[in-house]
Amino acid sequence: MDVRGYVDSHAPEFTEALKQWLAIPSVSGDPGRHADVRRSAQWLAEHLRAAGFPVAEVWETSGGGLPAVFAEWPAADPAAPTALVYGHHDVQPAEPAGDWDSPPFAPAERGGILYGRGASDDKGQVLFHSLGVRARLAADSAAAPPVTVKLLVEGEEESGSGNFAALLRRERDRLACDVIVVSDTTMWAADVPSMCTGMRGLAEAEVTLTGPARDLHSGSFGGGVPNPLHAMASLLAGLHDAAGRVTLPGFYDRVVPLSGQERELLARLPFDEKRWLADAGESGAAAGEAGFSTLERIWARPTAEVNGMWGGHTGPGRKTIIPRSAHAKVSFRLVADQDPAEVAAAFTEYVLAVTPPGIHAAVEVGPGVRPCRSPIGSPAVQAGRRALQRAFGREVLFTREGGSGPEADLADILGAPLVFLAVGLDSDNIHAPNEKADLSLLLRGAEASAYLWEELAAIRSELT
Amino acid sequence: MDVRGYVDSHAPEFTEALKQWLAIPSVSGDPGRHADVRRSAQWLAEHLRAAGFPVAEVWETSGGGLPAVFAEWPAADPAAPTALVYGHHDVQPAEPAGDWDSPPFAPAERGGILYGRGASDDKGQVLFHSLGVRARLAADSAAAPPVTVKLLVEGEEESGSGNFAALLRRERDRLACDVIVVSDTTMWAADVPSMCTGMRGLAEAEVTLTGPARDLHSGSFGGGVPNPLHAMASLLAGLHDAAGRVTLPGFYDRVVPLSGQERELLARLPFDEKRWLADAGESGAAAGEAGFSTLERIWARPTAEVNGMWGGHTGPGRKTIIPRSAHAKVSFRLVADQDPAEVAAAFTEYVLAVTPPGIHAAVEVGPGVRPCRSPIGSPAVQAGRRALQRAFGREVLFTREGGSGPEADLADILGAPLVFLAVGLDSDNIHAPNEKADLSLLLRGAEASAYLWEELAAIRSELT
Repeated sequence: MDVRGYVDSHAPEFTEALKQWLAIPSVSGDPGRHADVRRSAQWLAEHLRAAGFPVAEVWETSGGGLPAVFAEWPAADPAAPTALVYGHHDVQPAEPAGDWDSPPFAPAERGGILYGRGASDDKGQVLFHSLGVRARLAADSAAAPPVTVKLLVEGEEESGSGNFAALLRRERDRLACDVIVVSDTTMWAADVPSMCTGMRGLAEAEVTLTGPARDLHSGSFGGGVPNPLHAMASLLAGLHDAAGRVTLPGFYDRVVPLSGQERELLARLPFDEKRWLADAGESGAAAGEAGFSTLERIWARPTAEVNGMWGGHTGPGRKTIIPRSAHAKVSFRLVADQDPAEVAAAFTEYVLAVTPPGIHAAVEVGPGVRPCRSPIGSPAVQAGRRALQRAFGREVLFTREGGSGPEADLADILGAPLVFLAVGLDSDNIHAPNEKADLSLLLRGAEASAYLWEELAAIRSELT
Repeated sequence: MDVRGYVDSHAPEFTEALKQWLAIPSVSGDPGRHADVRRSAQWLAEHLRAAGFPVAEVWETSGGGLPAVFAEWPAADPAAPTALVYGHHDVQPAEPAGDWDSPPFAPAERGGILYGRGASDDKGQVLFHSLGVRARLAADSAAAPPVTVKLLVEGEEESGSGNFAALLRRERDRLACDVIVVSDTTMWAADVPSMCTGMRGLAEAEVTLTGPARDLHSGSFGGGVPNPLHAMASLLAGLHDAAGRVTLPGFYDRVVPLSGQERELLARLPFDEKRWLADAGESGAAAGEAGFSTLERIWARPTAEVNGMWGGHTGPGRKTIIPRSAHAKVSFRLVADQDPAEVAAAFTEYVLAVTPPGIHAAVEVGPGVRPCRSPIGSPAVQAGRRALQRAFGREVLFTREGGSGPEADLADILGAPLVFLAVGLDSDNIHAPNEKADLSLLLRGAEASAYLWEELAAIRSELT
């Protein structure tokens, strides 16, 4: 039986298993649901053992967090490459539950669409790999896949993956791999299959500027002493130049530029900018760095954003003061190969340099997230693209994501390239009521998974 | 008996009367004290009648506010000029009462200093005129003063003088005068007598910039849509140029420049900038418009100050959003002959001009206060200066005030020049616990008042 035949004939069984899993409310952000997160990990480990994985274990984190699931199905050939699939089994809270058409944890199928919290993010996309591996074996009439397949399915992704990097470091040996397959993103559209090729990272800081010892009367002091709000406005205004570029020295030094081919492929995505702006509630103006399209700006270019600022009199009425202090929260979206710590340091230096005499500046830096990148020309990405093209029967384009989770940690700590293979849609209502997944797309995901093991085996010399 | 002899011999009587008046807690800002404000008006009218004023009336405002007191003592010669004294009989709240060394409304004399709410601001400075007029009559052995003396003593000054302009318009005829004597300011120091020669006005506005329909995720939208906080920071930063000048077009067009003589006289004030900065709690930096001293900056130059700004995430922790809106409260201290409405209009125009596409701007303008000016070379000011120099026996210098009350309304509506004749000190703790007045200075004020009527009569041809 070929891959498609196997996948399609096992669709009812796949759907039934997914429904069982979705019924477990594994909300990592809700301490009252943590027992369910553990139950979810147990369910997955049992499911993978039943599917034939020789190894399927629940892994506790060192930090006392919520467990991950690790599974491994070794290739027959010990010299074959190893692929590690990343996903997560915890889910977002379902509130407000009243906004759901059917209960969030009572999965319901309507017209080929499966509704339930986690259907798309990320249980459906984890589970298709189990079907994909079995389809591969069936098509090859083999007892083991052509590459070693490992799965690492996290239990704290929706809560910030706080213990994940430590887990990766602790288990680095058992997680050793030649390629990391991430199945936690989206495609452009059901009829425009695509692969993510990069995610923006984040640097964060909070600035406090302090001037006078107390709020001063602007009649008595106005014009004679520095005003922290003026200093803050100048500081924040100075973060961008007239072309919308970030002014921090060296900010763009490590930015890997978009290649002509990448720009050409991005431009081919059927992007409806007007609709996107309407979705943002903007009155019709895209804005940003000169010389880049909107998709390039939000996916492939770094930014500086002021997320909040405050100081002085912010209540009703008027108060003619020179306030004691001014505050701002600033974050930077980063692209490969920018480093959050370097950017935060450059920002801190900038703040201190532009703070005028008489004002004291303090900058508190957040932990940051590293950006990641999956070059479209790499052998692993090309293999993933062929697998998806075979599953969907049409050309696969490339996207990026504006934000990210722990993907950069995976690539950095395990030292392997990332390949994004996912079939979610932006319309799946992840993190919102009525989350859903198109079952036919999940089945194409299983198919792509099966093709991927074959494609990776075919380029083994380029991977190991 | 000469003026000084009369004043000094009537000191006990003056002090006794002032103590009676100070015992009435005429706090206009406290509705529970409004009956006391009315009692205070009655007390003053009776006192002035007893002092010999042929006319002494309590005037209700048209707006249902707290009453003013009007009194008039006509000159024997109906062609003599008229001087109108302005002051107020309402006082600031006394809270926190526990911080007073003696109860705020139980006036106490200690070492020649009278403690009590209103001792300096402004009952003591109103009352010295009653003694001054009588000293003039005694010295002249006359039944009427050499100029017509009118008093207008407001009851809502500490609450914003909300009904005062309307009262001035309603009673314009009975208030007709050739010079307005304002006794509600301070001198530089007990041994550095001075006169105020100008007060800054105020223009106020609140700006709201609105962008997206809701807070947007900066991962999904960051870099592609305008951020209202960026627009606000640029707008506010753009209000000043590198020299600390306000950039609004035409902002300085109506500013009457300081003359060389004024600058020279200001520079002779023994100003301890270090101590002033320490008082502001600044770490040692004066700042402001290039080319001007600190006293010039805070008294004689207009400013733009951001009094408050806010938008986006201002609570604990981090939230990577592009916020829906940004807000700022901005005020301008103005000097003669700037017009608050013109400045507010220029600011509104500026905001609309610099607001980027995709952001909507709304500017709400406050009522504003007009600046006032009392030119040092004018005959009335010179007469006031001679009167003060005679009372203090030394040269009188000139100051200004950084903020103001209803003085510009007085000058505008009554169409007469302002002369500031006052003996309060910055150390009098007005608006604070332990308000006090130096009784010997109040007596010098009475003396100066007596001399002033004579000096004004001597320049009658220059006034009328």
